[in-house]
Amino acid sequence: MASTTRAVMRLPASSIAFGATSRRQFATSSLLARARPRSRIILDKSKVQQNFRRAYADVAPVKKPRRFRWFRFLWRFTYLSAIGGTAYLAYGVYDQKHPDDQFEPDPTKKNLVILGTGWGAVSLLKKLDTENYNVIVISPRNYFLFTPLLPSCTTGTVEHRSIMEPIRSILRHKKAAVKYYEAEATKIDPERKIVAIDDNSDIKGASNKTEVAYDMLVVSVGAENATFGIPGVKEHSCFLKEIGDAQQIRKKIMDCVETATFKDQSPEEVERLLHMVVVGGGPTGVEFAGELQDFFDEDIKKWVPEISDKFKVTLIEALPNVLPMFSKQLIDYTEATFKEEKITIMTKTAVKKVTDKTVEAEATGPDGKKTLQTLPYGLLVWATGNAVRPVVRDLMSQIPAQKDSRRGLAVNEYLVVQGTKDIWATGDCAVAGYAPTAQVASQEGAFLARLFNTMAKSEAIESQIHDLSSSLNLQPGNTAEIAKEIEAHEKQLRRIKDIKPFHYTHQGSLAYIGSERAVADVSWLNGNFATGGGLTYLFWRSAYLSMCFSTRNRVLVVLDWLKSKAFGRDVSRE
Amino acid sequence: MASTTRAVMRLPASSIAFGATSRRQFATSSLLARARPRSRIILDKSKVQQNFRRAYADVAPVKKPRRFRWFRFLWRFTYLSAIGGTAYLAYGVYDQKHPDDQFEPDPTKKNLVILGTGWGAVSLLKKLDTENYNVIVISPRNYFLFTPLLPSCTTGTVEHRSIMEPIRSILRHKKAAVKYYEAEATKIDPERKIVAIDDNSDIKGASNKTEVAYDMLVVSVGAENATFGIPGVKEHSCFLKEIGDAQQIRKKIMDCVETATFKDQSPEEVERLLHMVVVGGGPTGVEFAGELQDFFDEDIKKWVPEISDKFKVTLIEALPNVLPMFSKQLIDYTEATFKEEKITIMTKTAVKKVTDKTVEAEATGPDGKKTLQTLPYGLLVWATGNAVRPVVRDLMSQIPAQKDSRRGLAVNEYLVVQGTKDIWATGDCAVAGYAPTAQVASQEGAFLARLFNTMAKSEAIESQIHDLSSSLNLQPGNTAEIAKEIEAHEKQLRRIKDIKPFHYTHQGSLAYIGSERAVADVSWLNGNFATGGGLTYLFWRSAYLSMCFSTRNRVLVVLDWLKSKAFGRDVSRE
Repeated sequence: MASTTRAVMRLPASSIAFGATSRRQFATSSLLARARPRSRIILDKSKVQQNFRRAYADVAPVKKPRRFRWFRFLWRFTYLSAIGGTAYLAYGVYDQKHPDDQFEPDPTKKNLVILGTGWGAVSLLKKLDTENYNVIVISPRNYFLFTPLLPSCTTGTVEHRSIMEPIRSILRHKKAAVKYYEAEATKIDPERKIVAIDDNSDIKGASNKTEVAYDMLVVSVGAENATFGIPGVKEHSCFLKEIGDAQQIRKKIMDCVETATFKDQSPEEVERLLHMVVVGGGPTGVEFAGELQDFFDEDIKKWVPEISDKFKVTLIEALPNVLPMFSKQLIDYTEATFKEEKITIMTKTAVKKVTDKTVEAEATGPDGKKTLQTLPYGLLVWATGNAVRPVVRDLMSQIPAQKDSRRGLAVNEYLVVQGTKDIWATGDCAVAGYAPTAQVASQEGAFLARLFNTMAKSEAIESQIHDLSSSLNLQPGNTAEIAKEIEAHEKQLRRIKDIKPFHYTHQGSLAYIGSERAVADVSWLNGNFATGGGLTYLFWRSAYLSMCFSTRNRVLVVLDWLKSKAFGRDVSRE
Repeated sequence: MASTTRAVMRLPASSIAFGATSRRQFATSSLLARARPRSRIILDKSKVQQNFRRAYADVAPVKKPRRFRWFRFLWRFTYLSAIGGTAYLAYGVYDQKHPDDQFEPDPTKKNLVILGTGWGAVSLLKKLDTENYNVIVISPRNYFLFTPLLPSCTTGTVEHRSIMEPIRSILRHKKAAVKYYEAEATKIDPERKIVAIDDNSDIKGASNKTEVAYDMLVVSVGAENATFGIPGVKEHSCFLKEIGDAQQIRKKIMDCVETATFKDQSPEEVERLLHMVVVGGGPTGVEFAGELQDFFDEDIKKWVPEISDKFKVTLIEALPNVLPMFSKQLIDYTEATFKEEKITIMTKTAVKKVTDKTVEAEATGPDGKKTLQTLPYGLLVWATGNAVRPVVRDLMSQIPAQKDSRRGLAVNEYLVVQGTKDIWATGDCAVAGYAPTAQVASQEGAFLARLFNTMAKSEAIESQIHDLSSSLNLQPGNTAEIAKEIEAHEKQLRRIKDIKPFHYTHQGSLAYIGSERAVADVSWLNGNFATGGGLTYLFWRSAYLSMCFSTRNRVLVVLDWLKSKAFGRDVSRE
């Protein structure tokens, strides 16, 4: 189609019909000629002439054979989409850098206080119409962190700033201005409707502890790392939840390598220092183990050849297998891949004690017999368990309805904290019956945004109805019309208020397992689609890329991937 | 030239002469035709015919007029250089990622111990033929840092990893393997020829303190920050010498901004928190002040509009002007530019005391009168002064010849530490009569590499002469020939040994002064070339780029510049 249009455009108007017809003729005769090439010799003179004409007419199509049409189409499609993509990207970049002017929100509106800048809070902020409320965001972390790529940060496959999006930039793009305080919420008082906040950063102003009043409160503070009371974990292991954790791990990996090559280091000590132990067989632990082995195989080995056969990664998991949320075949695939990569997996193994140089772990054999092992380690990463944050625990203790809840704030199907009015909770600090994942938190945040937008709309209609009712009393004439209007508004109100309770839709699980392979368990048409390998790795990359918060994040992550491919990962320790 | 060649290549051999001639004819006639277009009508018939012929012949050149030839040439030149450049870049990247196998050095060779991984040490390592020695590098920092771009790191114009080059990668590209220990040299014993080293990082092995024997030692440990004994400087200010300093400053800038926007912060406190004080008017201080103001004007202002008129940068310098190594006109230009950018310069002002929130500074007026001012600040950056490191001070105390030296190890014109044999010093820890700059250290390192390569060569020749002399005694026949050979070797030896003492060649000074302007004082044909402004900024960028250690650094820095241009600098505080 495209090629015809182009040909037509080049011809003067008068020749269009001819041009089109002759093209069609060429095509037909060329087909005939090809279909019976030998039969031609027996034809009479007129047919020969016809054939000659046809042969002559064939010249043009021979130059541009039909079979290339698809390539041409494909080529045009490719470059048009490249142009379109570039324009879209450029617009995205421009738009992000040039926010519109914001208006100050109406101070008479309700105070909506949001605690946190994680998945729940940011997904709420993204969809919230901020002009309906006085929105105040409070968090000690002034950026949103794209946690799924955090394991890649520990080795430098992705730089940490590429997966951070400043909350200031997110808020600045809302229609109405949103206040942000960089502070930690230390206490929530549901009686006085007040949140106590504390600036716990290095630089403090004269005002560094204060209170913020709320009319509506969203608790999205996430969870802490759980050590399950195992001695030594807090003191000696690295967690993997925040940017600081990833940086510390990155530093320590190289510290282990450099210390292992220190003068006169004994072979046992070298072995200990290069033994990296990961506790927790969930996606975080598995991805970190994979990234670590990649870092060693692809980079460290090359630059520090003297330790090339001494690096070892061990993954400890208390359950009978790693990645429990994945299907059996993917678990097997992961375990086989790890074996290939020489990562040791210890399942049914519980950590009992951690010292500065050893992990004591109790393995349960197939016969139920328990054996205690002591593993010397250089680096220990604790990638398992969520604990309730103090501010949440304190709030729970104030609400009688929460006394049976252990893992966080029990919420109802509208994410309202049970036993309270005007307090909602999302993500890892809320107990709604779902796993503590980014996906759940994100969907909860988006649900709250819809809920709050609807509430604002229905309140606006209610006040209109109220006004109309008052006018009905004041002006006795024209009653029927006003009553009709009120009825219409009430109908609208019912429609708006008919908001369904929160329902989580699981879209799938993804995990990188090292050596450019990944596993994916994706929900697909009411079924499941399980896949693992190199192609899944490409899917993993594109899925994570599309989930990044902003165009900026996406571009930076792609650049980081290209950088680490071209130059390798950085082995500097800073 | 290029276009003619191409035309000739397309013609069959027999037509070359004709082709070339006719081309030339076209050109001539076309010139004539253009020169007298109106005179043509009065010519007789034969001339008209000639003209007709000419007009006809003109057709081809009209299609490709001569004036486009240069454009064509330029275009070809451009794309050929683009192809060449890309190939060169790709080779550079490939070469850096694929080091050749190294051979282990001969253990009977001399131990050459190099302390440090800064400008002096790395420039020595770059040019040293490592196969002549057992080279051991010792430094607590396992990367080389391109310090001129450090001020850009404080605001995120350039990411810190882009200006770091792992020492492992530098050493892995040498012909013979080089040992590296990540440790701090704590003591040098010139009697026992031993360096005591200490692994002072977080992760320590069983062996973490030991001694390394040297036959030759190069001290390139640089200097510490000097506080001149001013109370409070060490406790409350940030330095700007290492990557960690730049990261801390970056964090603190945003901490000040976030604290200033904390709830109920008083106007005085906001003013204090957003007052950034830089002490030291050398290139580092000036560049940092410029970058800081850029960061605020281009980014912070946009994302945190509520503080847009409250940010203030003050530069304090004890001397009568900033950038003392630059010419008068550039100093004036810098001061005028700073005024435009609203950076306050306080010259002839000495800091007397620093508290956690104020700087006490004594300004000397034009009349010599001194006034004490107290400046409240949010962030204080100390960008002035070098002090001798403890290990160097300790070495100096052991050498009687060094007792009058104050600022570092006094060295002779071959950079040998005075009063020692077999110890050399370069850079900020050496006193050779030059300013403590990267340029000096780098030239000193390169000089030592030449010196050591020469020494190895002459030693090899000496041992050859020695062998020949012995053989002369053992085998009495063929004396004349051997004597001749010895003489030839001795001649070679004299030529090699005739190495000139170290001489520093100043190539110029460069400094970025904010709002995309820079100043440059470049040595040029025995004279000086002083320039400032936007074009100088481009020169500054390309000069720094060309000085970067590796292709990797260069590519990463360019990408960072593009990134901060496209997306702005990151305002996340991590």
